[in-house]
Amino acid sequence: MISAADIAALDANDPLAPFRSRFALPDGVTYLDGNSLGALPVATVDRQMAVLRDEWGQGLIRSWNSADWISSPARVGAKIARLIGAAPHEVTVADSTSVNLFKLIVGALQMQRGRHVVLSEPGNFPTDLYLIESAIRTLGGKHRLELVSRESITQHLSDDTALVLLTHVHYKTADLYDMADITGAAQRAGALMLWDLSHSAGAVPLDLTEAHADFAVGCGYKFLNGGPGAPAYLYVAERHQAHIQSPLGGWMGHARPFAFDDGYEPAPGIARFLCGTPPILSMAALESGVDLFLEADMSQVAAKSRALATLFIDLVTERCAGYGLELVGPERGAPRGSHVSFRHPEGYAIMQALIARQVIGDFRAPDVMRFGLTPLYLRYTDIAHAVDVLEEILRTRAYIAPEFHVRHAVT
Amino acid sequence: MISAADIAALDANDPLAPFRSRFALPDGVTYLDGNSLGALPVATVDRQMAVLRDEWGQGLIRSWNSADWISSPARVGAKIARLIGAAPHEVTVADSTSVNLFKLIVGALQMQRGRHVVLSEPGNFPTDLYLIESAIRTLGGKHRLELVSRESITQHLSDDTALVLLTHVHYKTADLYDMADITGAAQRAGALMLWDLSHSAGAVPLDLTEAHADFAVGCGYKFLNGGPGAPAYLYVAERHQAHIQSPLGGWMGHARPFAFDDGYEPAPGIARFLCGTPPILSMAALESGVDLFLEADMSQVAAKSRALATLFIDLVTERCAGYGLELVGPERGAPRGSHVSFRHPEGYAIMQALIARQVIGDFRAPDVMRFGLTPLYLRYTDIAHAVDVLEEILRTRAYIAPEFHVRHAVT
Repeated sequence: MISAADIAALDANDPLAPFRSRFALPDGVTYLDGNSLGALPVATVDRQMAVLRDEWGQGLIRSWNSADWISSPARVGAKIARLIGAAPHEVTVADSTSVNLFKLIVGALQMQRGRHVVLSEPGNFPTDLYLIESAIRTLGGKHRLELVSRESITQHLSDDTALVLLTHVHYKTADLYDMADITGAAQRAGALMLWDLSHSAGAVPLDLTEAHADFAVGCGYKFLNGGPGAPAYLYVAERHQAHIQSPLGGWMGHARPFAFDDGYEPAPGIARFLCGTPPILSMAALESGVDLFLEADMSQVAAKSRALATLFIDLVTERCAGYGLELVGPERGAPRGSHVSFRHPEGYAIMQALIARQVIGDFRAPDVMRFGLTPLYLRYTDIAHAVDVLEEILRTRAYIAPEFHVRHAVT
Repeated sequence: MISAADIAALDANDPLAPFRSRFALPDGVTYLDGNSLGALPVATVDRQMAVLRDEWGQGLIRSWNSADWISSPARVGAKIARLIGAAPHEVTVADSTSVNLFKLIVGALQMQRGRHVVLSEPGNFPTDLYLIESAIRTLGGKHRLELVSRESITQHLSDDTALVLLTHVHYKTADLYDMADITGAAQRAGALMLWDLSHSAGAVPLDLTEAHADFAVGCGYKFLNGGPGAPAYLYVAERHQAHIQSPLGGWMGHARPFAFDDGYEPAPGIARFLCGTPPILSMAALESGVDLFLEADMSQVAAKSRALATLFIDLVTERCAGYGLELVGPERGAPRGSHVSFRHPEGYAIMQALIARQVIGDFRAPDVMRFGLTPLYLRYTDIAHAVDVLEEILRTRAYIAPEFHVRHAVT
């Protein structure tokens, strides 16, 4: 039996505990959805005010230089690079994860003339699959998408495999790929490897350099706490930067954007993956989130992520047995991403009942309840509280109330 | 001779004069660059605070529904539709102008099988030309870009013309196309017509419905005052919506984004042109800017734009004769966009000297000084002050000082 004292001790010994006060969390809410939308850092509010009032309001157009807005994609990219084990000039911030996927899928396929297959897994995050479809259609239909189970990816590599696109941490199950292992296998087959880090960065250890990664994309609004719809980032290994071209060659990716030449010439480095004018307000919020993350020790973040997951699974096992919950994804103690998911036939209604009681996780069709574990602002006691509320809902069958069965769009 | 009393009378009789107080303009600055970055509306600051503190901070993930973030692309698009003469469901807000150009160029070319030419003009805004290049390259190189002078566009239409892409108001010269005329000619030749409205919306009269336009894109951060790098919008005439597909089919453009299906199915209407998650902070600022615009009478805006331009040209003619300034683009009184440009061999240094004296316009290579005329927050006396400062710089040759000859990136 895990006691309240055990849990209190975990919090008392948590080296990351001081970070919680750096977030503006609502009173009374237990927030287990930071893997969908990260919480608001306190510092983001003042920073956003300064960008609005001083940089935009007073500086106006001059702030592109005086506040260095123009360098923000490279500057914030270099900061994110530290979180994912990349060199500063290998990462930039631009557009959305979806748009960046398109850039890198098309760019990679055009590097791989003579190869025709993009390999991924069924149930990958949908936009990753959709953008492969988009890229194949736009390139004229001479490529094809092969979806094979995650266990059999490496067996399906062949001399026709152009690109492997996988999400490092699965958005639904928290299953985790061995990045170095899969990347090595893909590269030995002559394929290029594109990783989606949306559910990894800021939660699990990442070292793109050590994994000899080719390409990666990731999301700013989850563990990085960059705000709703924050700009995304992309990574291109230095060795590829001169050889890959973006299919979205806009003026911000030009070698000389302010020469206003009629003809396009890509910028020499990662900057060629910029397209239009960067969204400065959203970019500033992302930078605030990333700055806060850079204060944390990533090995402590990863260790706490694992400990929160273990506690969650142990408490559910102990307190919610017999109610039909089924752990999805990695077993207790196995390598995993920073969320825990349980399947239940009434998962949607149970999640609505949890949210009504201020325990906020999310639901992924058809039957998965997903609980995000964000080491910077969650306490071990929050996990215990969430499981207690879950147990009460299951025990009292509170989720059968009709109001929990009306479906709305949720992201 | 135009007297100070004449100018004061223009301000006294300006029905839009009250709008100036709705903007947070810096003291002492004469801002003639609102066509590059619009000024900060006062209401944007409070709105942005509410989005940060209440919607993101307190509402967290729930705000996708409770604050209706999920509808913001359609909602803000419908508001912009009122400014450009479109139906509400014909406009959505997404990505950047550059990315939206790519979507519509590729989408249009795929509707026009058997036609191979994209027609535009040399010196069009560079990103428009770059994205045509991008689209042609990505589609396999079977199309070609033809650049012909603006006067000869209609003569170059043929049965091989797939698409005509023009910027309605030229970013450098303020030259203005007759939208209905060119659109009609293109359509009679079997071509589709894509208009870039970046320098038009919020400044000159626009009626896409009356012009029977096919497609349009535009920028949120110029006359619409949406903030630096604000999201852009795109327009697809209702008759085309079921027949054009976006090459960037991301999850937000799916018919059922939250079903998380492996296969892509485009949303039925304009929503298929969404791709990734919308940037809510930047979107909220854009909405504040557009909301303010919707309070204004667009015919008054257009009339004041013309009157500001006429006054600017008349004052320069009267006060700056003999200093080598050459008016670029439309003559006095001719139809024009909402900026006035003058060529001068020392244009770059003269503009730097103006900026040092708090008169902010901008410079476009190789020799164009550009002055944006924003009817909502400029006074006629601001124009007179700007011309007086310009005259003093020219008369005293203040621009020869070395500090005005060091070039920086400006946008």
